[in-house]
Amino acid sequence: MLGRLNHVAIAVPDLAAASAVYRDTLGATLTEPQVLPEHGVTVVFIDVGNTKIELLEPLNAQSPIAAFLAKNPSGGMHHLCYEVTDILAARNQLQLQGARILGDGEPKIGAHGKPVLFLHPKDFNGTLIELEQV
Amino acid sequence: MLGRLNHVAIAVPDLAAASAVYRDTLGATLTEPQVLPEHGVTVVFIDVGNTKIELLEPLNAQSPIAAFLAKNPSGGMHHLCYEVTDILAARNQLQLQGARILGDGEPKIGAHGKPVLFLHPKDFNGTLIELEQV
Repeated sequence: MLGRLNHVAIAVPDLAAASAVYRDTLGATLTEPQVLPEHGVTVVFIDVGNTKIELLEPLNAQSPIAAFLAKNPSGGMHHLCYEVTDILAARNQLQLQGARILGDGEPKIGAHGKPVLFLHPKDFNGTLIELEQV
Repeated sequence: MLGRLNHVAIAVPDLAAASAVYRDTLGATLTEPQVLPEHGVTVVFIDVGNTKIELLEPLNAQSPIAAFLAKNPSGGMHHLCYEVTDILAARNQLQLQGARILGDGEPKIGAHGKPVLFLHPKDFNGTLIELEQV
């Protein structure tokens, strides 16, 4: 079921400062920031050749990543996104295995305009996993 | 400087249980466990096509990941490993930019038999970064 690693998401308190570190210190190439109001974040993508790093800054205190940053003020790795070919088949198989899907269990449209689901980190060794249908 | 993402390392308290979740629930293909006494870990690799996931279980209380698991008992994302072509050139450039290298700053031989260095997570938004020369 598990396909390619689409991206690693890193929550950051200051997107401009984090972007400067990746650009100037690590020599990476970054996209322009995109504001995604429906996800409560501003995002910058870094293409590292075989996958992407996604830097996430919360838009406001209601952002899904605001609570994470409250616990980890300097930021940290937030989730891993894997590609799947059929997100409903993947969800049904995961639920049969006893894994918990976050929210109402229905796919939402993610940052790339494709259906996504998040799996409960307690079922996967403390790792928040996003599945994206490609 | 930053090359491909070689792997994402996830610290786990029970490698057999975590392996079963990735194999049975997520349908992934895993390597056999390898004991690496010089790194204080037992490791299983998961090939997801474009990169690898590395599951790490501490060998003992002196393991570098034992303290991480004491803070995160169910496990969690531990570090990201990027490839570089020249690890000494990368180190020198990072130090010029003010980034801190862990340990004595000299590359060690990593799990793949290649020179590696770790960068201070406080300089990279709470993310522990490993560089591996390929």
